[in-house]
Amino acid sequence: MKAGIVGATGYGGMELFRILSTHPQISQIMLYSSSRAGEVYEEMFPRFAGGSRHELQDLDPEKMKEEQDVLFLAAPSGVSSELTPELLGGKAKIIDVSGDLRLRDPEAYQQWYKKPPAPVETLQEAVYGLPEWNSEAIRAAGVIANPGCYPTASLLGLGPVISENLADPSSIVIDAKSGVSGAGKNANPLTHFAHAQENFQIYKVNQHQHIPEIEQQLSVWSGDTRPVTFSTHLVPMTKGIMATIYVTLKEEKTAEELHSLFLKYYESKPFVRVRRPGEFPATKDVYGSNYCDIGVTVDPRTNRVTIVSVIDNLMKGAASQAVQNMNLLFQLDERTGLAPHPVYP
Amino acid sequence: MKAGIVGATGYGGMELFRILSTHPQISQIMLYSSSRAGEVYEEMFPRFAGGSRHELQDLDPEKMKEEQDVLFLAAPSGVSSELTPELLGGKAKIIDVSGDLRLRDPEAYQQWYKKPPAPVETLQEAVYGLPEWNSEAIRAAGVIANPGCYPTASLLGLGPVISENLADPSSIVIDAKSGVSGAGKNANPLTHFAHAQENFQIYKVNQHQHIPEIEQQLSVWSGDTRPVTFSTHLVPMTKGIMATIYVTLKEEKTAEELHSLFLKYYESKPFVRVRRPGEFPATKDVYGSNYCDIGVTVDPRTNRVTIVSVIDNLMKGAASQAVQNMNLLFQLDERTGLAPHPVYP
Amino acid sequence: MKAGIVGATGYGGMELFRILSTHPQISQIMLYSSSRAGEVYEEMFPRFAGGSRHELQDLDPEKMKEEQDVLFLAAPSGVSSELTPELLGGKAKIIDVSGDLRLRDPEAYQQWYKKPPAPVETLQEAVYGLPEWNSEAIRAAGVIANPGCYPTASLLGLGPVISENLADPSSIVIDAKSGVSGAGKNANPLTHFAHAQENFQIYKVNQHQHIPEIEQQLSVWSGDTRPVTFSTHLVPMTKGIMATIYVTLKEEKTAEELHSLFLKYYESKPFVRVRRPGEFPATKDVYGSNYCDIGVTVDPRTNRVTIVSVIDNLMKGAASQAVQNMNLLFQLDERTGLAPHPVYP
Amino acid sequence: MKAGIVGATGYGGMELFRILSTHPQISQIMLYSSSRAGEVYEEMFPRFAGGSRHELQDLDPEKMKEEQDVLFLAAPSGVSSELTPELLGGKAKIIDVSGDLRLRDPEAYQQWYKKPPAPVETLQEAVYGLPEWNSEAIRAAGVIANPGCYPTASLLGLGPVISENLADPSSIVIDAKSGVSGAGKNANPLTHFAHAQENFQIYKVNQHQHIPEIEQQLSVWSGDTRPVTFSTHLVPMTKGIMATIYVTLKEEKTAEELHSLFLKYYESKPFVRVRRPGEFPATKDVYGSNYCDIGVTVDPRTNRVTIVSVIDNLMKGAASQAVQNMNLLFQLDERTGLAPHPVYP
Repeated sequence: MKAGIVGATGYGGMELFRILSTHPQISQIMLYSSSRAGEVYEEMFPRFAGGSRHELQDLDPEKMKEEQDVLFLAAPSGVSSELTPELLGGKAKIIDVSGDLRLRDPEAYQQWYKKPPAPVETLQEAVYGLPEWNSEAIRAAGVIANPGCYPTASLLGLGPVISENLADPSSIVIDAKSGVSGAGKNANPLTHFAHAQENFQIYKVNQHQHIPEIEQQLSVWSGDTRPVTFSTHLVPMTKGIMATIYVTLKEEKTAEELHSLFLKYYESKPFVRVRRPGEFPATKDVYGSNYCDIGVTVDPRTNRVTIVSVIDNLMKGAASQAVQNMNLLFQLDERTGLAPHPVYP
Repeated sequence: MKAGIVGATGYGGMELFRILSTHPQISQIMLYSSSRAGEVYEEMFPRFAGGSRHELQDLDPEKMKEEQDVLFLAAPSGVSSELTPELLGGKAKIIDVSGDLRLRDPEAYQQWYKKPPAPVETLQEAVYGLPEWNSEAIRAAGVIANPGCYPTASLLGLGPVISENLADPSSIVIDAKSGVSGAGKNANPLTHFAHAQENFQIYKVNQHQHIPEIEQQLSVWSGDTRPVTFSTHLVPMTKGIMATIYVTLKEEKTAEELHSLFLKYYESKPFVRVRRPGEFPATKDVYGSNYCDIGVTVDPRTNRVTIVSVIDNLMKGAASQAVQNMNLLFQLDERTGLAPHPVYP
Repeated sequence: MKAGIVGATGYGGMELFRILSTHPQISQIMLYSSSRAGEVYEEMFPRFAGGSRHELQDLDPEKMKEEQDVLFLAAPSGVSSELTPELLGGKAKIIDVSGDLRLRDPEAYQQWYKKPPAPVETLQEAVYGLPEWNSEAIRAAGVIANPGCYPTASLLGLGPVISENLADPSSIVIDAKSGVSGAGKNANPLTHFAHAQENFQIYKVNQHQHIPEIEQQLSVWSGDTRPVTFSTHLVPMTKGIMATIYVTLKEEKTAEELHSLFLKYYESKPFVRVRRPGEFPATKDVYGSNYCDIGVTVDPRTNRVTIVSVIDNLMKGAASQAVQNMNLLFQLDERTGLAPHPVYP
Repeated sequence: MKAGIVGATGYGGMELFRILSTHPQISQIMLYSSSRAGEVYEEMFPRFAGGSRHELQDLDPEKMKEEQDVLFLAAPSGVSSELTPELLGGKAKIIDVSGDLRLRDPEAYQQWYKKPPAPVETLQEAVYGLPEWNSEAIRAAGVIANPGCYPTASLLGLGPVISENLADPSSIVIDAKSGVSGAGKNANPLTHFAHAQENFQIYKVNQHQHIPEIEQQLSVWSGDTRPVTFSTHLVPMTKGIMATIYVTLKEEKTAEELHSLFLKYYESKPFVRVRRPGEFPATKDVYGSNYCDIGVTVDPRTNRVTIVSVIDNLMKGAASQAVQNMNLLFQLDERTGLAPHPVYP
């Protein structure tokens, strides 16, 4: 299979390149860039040297969609909404790692992203690529909207409880924390090392563009469209997300019952690991891997459930989940080419 | 004034020593240690060299309570509960930085700390040292129970809303994050650098001993004794606490109204700084200082308030708040000897 | 091929387990532990869960050496010196990741490691496993002494200059810096996060046990046995080593000439990458990989050469270099099973 | 005394502001900025709120030099070379924290800084403000060239050995490491948290503008003008410098003799602390303080001395040393207003 990456100079694109380089079904990787076409990737980033050279190609949608089997779009938001329509109808399947194709409602996109949305027909063709909950549709899709990093952690944590309608829908609070790479590769005062080190920052309170993405999927599960509370913080670390999720139960459950519920949904899912009752994961448990690790408990004093969900934001939150989706699109074992163990320490 | 410190080899005690060394009313500092008496502090910790030498003294309560004007107890929990009764009745006022004297209910102490509590009469004599809410009692006290780090951040954030009975009392969720120094100075696998770096960890879910301390003060304010949800996380940084607090309002309020409410309570308090509507503090804004910085907003979609409260866990969360209490105990300006600006970057 | 790991609960052993788990020629991994036999690795370390379970086996040298094709010894120093003799003579080839078999002179081992050395005949059988300089002997060996982390970075940096006898042998200064994982997994005050964070520490000045290992190989290359100056520092990061090496040239050379010299030795070596003149690597350029990246220049003002050599201390400095050696021992392409790209960011 | 700061929005200026705010002899601080005049400092940086407000003033040299007693110039290099001449001849003494006035040779400035130098007569008026070696001239000066961060650490480490002519002058190697704040406040790819974290980088090899500053002072001490080797590295921490210095002795000395030599020079200096033989400082030992801590030893195998010198780059390496110089300029105890203890942990 031949794969193309648009946006290979960003963090997500770099990780895609790294993973695809050892994927057993990928015979060729083509990198595209409008601004830096002609440059050699391994010279721009000597850390990638040592193997074959990749010259960045100009964006030519007509050619790309016929020459590649799969195209990963890992550019900043606003690119895919324009580019995807031009890439449809060819041989290539599309996996969009940006936020452009995730919201089915174009107005919501406009409102939260402050940018013009993709055409409605493109949005309708896109399948939300959360493999643990949507694998059937993914296998049949031509265009995948790869989930956001925060939504991946949040939704995998909430899925069992919301699907079973156990929670008071107005009670959902998601307190999410991310490593600084989540803020992207562009240097700015907030991500300056001397500012971010020894600093814990909150940002975009009630305004993060991942809020409608989470709410959209929750309403698919529960039919309920009530809003959630979702907060995002910057942790002085490079990678990793933890979503600490609080929901109040409609009826009492024990920690063991909740644990069994999560096992019911995830025991057969290779990339979601549920911790034993009383145990909780840390972000380093999934560093450099495609895993989402989850711990769950309930406080009998308040009947409030605490769900802890961790991922590597650039892997399960972006690049490796995109490859998991690619595996499904091409009817491969979803684990193909994905590392079975995180890097530690 | 002469000051003594018990537990000067721990993190809290070191910061106390540092602050008291430049306090204009302190003429002498005596350091006590049962295990290391006879050793010289500046030789154990060459970072403190350069001024006078302090030889660690044996613990001799009878002598201590007469020779010192103020005694800071900064030993691990379990020490003050036994030591404080022996220190009463002398000249020295007592400021206990451990958790031993904070809970008025001895059974709650036993339950959450898993240790025998202090005698009831000692607990009754202790005044909870949260200066922004309790300065009158503090000024008249002989024994201060210096608040815990998490409770300081949490309670200063919740005070205005709970005092005014604006919140649904069953809705309170406190998602707290602390730098690793909060786990104390003893080396263990969780605080090993190679484990804690690039790692975000949750611990003691629903079991942290600061929960009853928070609930006790909330019930003082509201009369309501319902439990709260309180989670604690370890951030890969040395110092700093952020408490992200969620409460649902009984009635609608705007962000501006909430801001005004917080100003009403804190405008005259030199160590609590309320951010403008829409702005939130980060932990580095208070690094090395006695400030608690607070931001507050409300999401009109959910009518849920988000309060963000940050402190330096070893300063306002321990040592500098203890000195603030000392200032009040001795009728000094509460700012005496406390740095007006945090260290940055 | 079947592989066994002794010491799989340490940092080096964990990385070995991770790498071997995806090595295409390894069909089975057996983990040995005298103290924790019977426990299940994936339950001790849930981060490794998700695949097959590995029960820790008791150390039984007679059985091990017949059942396994290759045995990795990744225990602390002092274990291999006793264990290796018992493992000889069977089917298994031995790769010792500790320092026990590196020094050919038992007295030097005793002096620098303060422990009894391995038997002379065992030391004589061990081949020093620096593949870029010793691949022929490695391919023919039965026992490999895998190089230390600091020596790997230092020797790969010095090799070309010393082999060609370009340097004043009394001028060599190696200023080495390592991430904290190099200090091992045991928690102690120096590796406590709150101490090591925002701290740059020097340790074992002129006393590090890697000094004789470096000098031994230099004397192999040059015939000169003069001592070097070698310093080690702890960097507040988890992984990575940089050796900044200074040598004075006997005769003038330009930066370009030095660059050509390094290319001559390393152009054909897949895991050593020489930077263009004027460019220098950073430790993150090799994070999670088996690469050693090298930059070299000369200051015409002093005729002193600066060589910068970086590795991942747990990979090229331990586990992945051990697998590279295994590949050579079994006549595989030395890149087999080793990631072609580092993890970034 | 009234103090003015030019460049108060940079890291050095912020620390100056913080220190001067509690200096007992400073009654007023005026902040100057050409680009942001009219803005209020405490609103730009809410972390400084809580006390009086400071409105940034336009740069008006004629007024500044008469209204202030002391002016600190903490702008980037290139500003002071133009501004200082206009500030001469008034009431105010000048302390320049930039590199503009440090090199007595204008051509050297042009060569290393790539900018036009200050007028020769201005350079001649400037006294090099290394208080431990130059206090007499400082006390009599009108203009101080505050030393660079790396030169401060390097020169305090080398001073005793070079002054006594003990070293082979061609043998000096200074391997220096700095926290990221040394690279300044402007965001760029090298200081992006996700790049700098878990990364150890070398930069400006043989090209750092602090090289001629170090060599200039060494030649003052020894009369020898031979060049040194000086390397600079970026450590993933915010603050702190360690200079590891290597020199070969002309004649043999023991570690104890060297220790005595350093004591001879520094015992009476309040801000240089010499460690006992065999002990070495870490950067955190001086965090937030004006100390330079030094350890020294010799390797009898090579007759090479290792000197380890640490400072806080923004304090002794910039702001607090500037205040130490101010104290000397105004005949105050040099410790006035400077914290006696570093912040720990």
